[in-house]
Amino acid sequence: MSEAVLGAVADAIDEARLWRLHEEFAAIGGTSKGGVCREALTPEDMTARIKLADLGRELGCTVGVDAIGNMFLRREGRKPDAAPVATGSHLDTQPTGGRFDGAYGVLAGVELFYALRDAGIETERPIEVINFTNEEGGRYAPGVMGSQVFADPDQLKRMLAAKAPDGGVLGGELGVFRQKLGPVEDRPFGTAYRAFVEGHIEQAPLLEETGNTVGVVTGIQGSRKFQIEVIGEEAHAGTMPRRRRKDALIAATHMVQALYRLMEDEEDTIRFTIGRFQAFPGAPSVVPGRVAFTCDFRHPSNELRARLGDQIEGLCKALAGPCGVEVNEYQSSVSVDFHGPMLEAVRRSAARLGVPHMDMYSGAGHDARNMARLCPSAMVFVPCERGISHNEAENAKASDLAAGTRVIAQAVTELALD
Amino acid sequence: MSEAVLGAVADAIDEARLWRLHEEFAAIGGTSKGGVCREALTPEDMTARIKLADLGRELGCTVGVDAIGNMFLRREGRKPDAAPVATGSHLDTQPTGGRFDGAYGVLAGVELFYALRDAGIETERPIEVINFTNEEGGRYAPGVMGSQVFADPDQLKRMLAAKAPDGGVLGGELGVFRQKLGPVEDRPFGTAYRAFVEGHIEQAPLLEETGNTVGVVTGIQGSRKFQIEVIGEEAHAGTMPRRRRKDALIAATHMVQALYRLMEDEEDTIRFTIGRFQAFPGAPSVVPGRVAFTCDFRHPSNELRARLGDQIEGLCKALAGPCGVEVNEYQSSVSVDFHGPMLEAVRRSAARLGVPHMDMYSGAGHDARNMARLCPSAMVFVPCERGISHNEAENAKASDLAAGTRVIAQAVTELALD
Repeated sequence: MSEAVLGAVADAIDEARLWRLHEEFAAIGGTSKGGVCREALTPEDMTARIKLADLGRELGCTVGVDAIGNMFLRREGRKPDAAPVATGSHLDTQPTGGRFDGAYGVLAGVELFYALRDAGIETERPIEVINFTNEEGGRYAPGVMGSQVFADPDQLKRMLAAKAPDGGVLGGELGVFRQKLGPVEDRPFGTAYRAFVEGHIEQAPLLEETGNTVGVVTGIQGSRKFQIEVIGEEAHAGTMPRRRRKDALIAATHMVQALYRLMEDEEDTIRFTIGRFQAFPGAPSVVPGRVAFTCDFRHPSNELRARLGDQIEGLCKALAGPCGVEVNEYQSSVSVDFHGPMLEAVRRSAARLGVPHMDMYSGAGHDARNMARLCPSAMVFVPCERGISHNEAENAKASDLAAGTRVIAQAVTELALD
Repeated sequence: MSEAVLGAVADAIDEARLWRLHEEFAAIGGTSKGGVCREALTPEDMTARIKLADLGRELGCTVGVDAIGNMFLRREGRKPDAAPVATGSHLDTQPTGGRFDGAYGVLAGVELFYALRDAGIETERPIEVINFTNEEGGRYAPGVMGSQVFADPDQLKRMLAAKAPDGGVLGGELGVFRQKLGPVEDRPFGTAYRAFVEGHIEQAPLLEETGNTVGVVTGIQGSRKFQIEVIGEEAHAGTMPRRRRKDALIAATHMVQALYRLMEDEEDTIRFTIGRFQAFPGAPSVVPGRVAFTCDFRHPSNELRARLGDQIEGLCKALAGPCGVEVNEYQSSVSVDFHGPMLEAVRRSAARLGVPHMDMYSGAGHDARNMARLCPSAMVFVPCERGISHNEAENAKASDLAAGTRVIAQAVTELALD
């Protein structure tokens, strides 16, 4: 019986429909270079959110939203009080992001609902598709915000007060979104799910290089994020002698070079990135009086992250020269190992479907990291071209997306059948 | 006769009125830190321009504007066809600029008009006070734009098309300004002036340190300005291995460090500044795919500027690593020596007034550099506190401003009496 149902749901996954869904969402905030600019809670993100709610209603789901803006499309089960099984990811993107990062996990869930409907399958447990708020953390810090608050509601107040460089305030924009969306169910935080499965593109080239179609994600490396501000003194570029300057850019470039050296490991397992770096006031003939930059530091070893990350502040202070420097760690997360029985469920689906798969570790952070604190969780990776992501050139194959969705569909449906 | 007139105009210079003028203009775009943000052709700059035109009309001047937006307040002389004597500077500021840079030269001219009126002095030649457009070059490149076009009208078309990072187009904003200003005289470029005298704060600490009140400026050092763009590849901060990255920020910081070393001279006469530096897309978890920065390089020696400036492009290319780099020189000017008889006229005024003065060289560029191509020109510097400029903390003493204005007033009036 169960095997027949699982076969039926996989058969009903429609590769062309799933690709069309990706195209339709990619058009919302689509860029001239084929990427997507749909940062959290911008008008583009709101349009995508409303489209998702409309799709959910068409598919017979109830739509719920919690206080941090996470969206829940719920397909009822025979036992409405049983702990639901959830899947999903995020629709927000980086400022120059791609068409698949995040969107894939949400749209694989929507496609699962289409398949369940077409195959006439009723599950015991309800199934929910979640769209988490502000996974990317580009416009509002920190990232994976929605799942973080979902798992730890004490963070809500601080997150609602988050400010974007463009002047936006998260709480205010959520209010605008709720008004545009119209009446939906108010959802509480911390739902006791039976399980959570997140689909995502790999964002690295391992699947492509090994000829596998699905990655069974065993864990996510931890990360530490820092905001660093160097304070010098503005001066006239044509008159102020070099020896009397307090040039924040000179000091900051010394720090940056030393930080890159500190984080250079022979094995190339450390991921260290200075993604934001800007000198102020930013006029060609003014000596910079201030530089602000970020550090994003990730590694599977909690010990190594603690040891090297703790050196960042001292190193910056030692290289500040005549300037001042402030180092603020604004985000930190330990490495997470996913739940063994959940990994088994994903491997079982892939094997049953004959999809080539491998175990792998995630370098990128994902919402599943936070969900793993609430319920048994897993992730399914699919290949993306050359591993390129956080880039408008991000690309993936329709057949890989569909194969991954079949694996997710079977795993979620199996968990919802008992 | 002439000595009596020169004494009368100097006596009529009113220190309190001149200071009040500075306070009134500093309020237009005034910042909470006591500085001024009045970048060229912003609404604040337009407000200051209209206030200047109103002052000119109150003082019986005709108001003219040329096609690049330079403003001319003209006080008629007994011989309306004689070549006029001009003074002035600019009302635009850096984004975090001070109250005196530029404004002093314009307001000293306005104060001269007050003094001539109060002393009942009629001159043979007309006298004009000029407010040049976009001296600072922070919002629109290049700087000293108004005087450059005035001396070389072939530049007009290119300058009108200049774009600001905030989306403004110079030609369009000039149209808005003309509409707000109402009917004024259309002025041609390249008026054959008898002479031009520009008052300005020193923007360096030499007058203060030597106890002098006026600097007789003998020349202005030449400059070269470069825009450099480093092109790498955006990638995910959590997944892309270091050895496969094309991180534009790593390449750019190597270039910056090498450029600072190249420009480090024992005598500390080279002025080399990287004032604008920004990584794109500027998200904490995206490896920077692009960095844009500027170089501002000044030195009195035309030979040294040529030799070192020509090394910038090669040095950047050698350090680009896996990235590409483009170097574009967008502005270049040779060192200028002011006209001997004009320096004599300024020294004579200072000596007659008993104002302690010294000859000095200007590190900063000024509109007088371009005016010197059209007519005998000179500059009068007054001290500013600790030499700090291009900074909201910029400061000057009312008595120094008045003393400098008396020197300018006598020099201009003497030239206008023959």
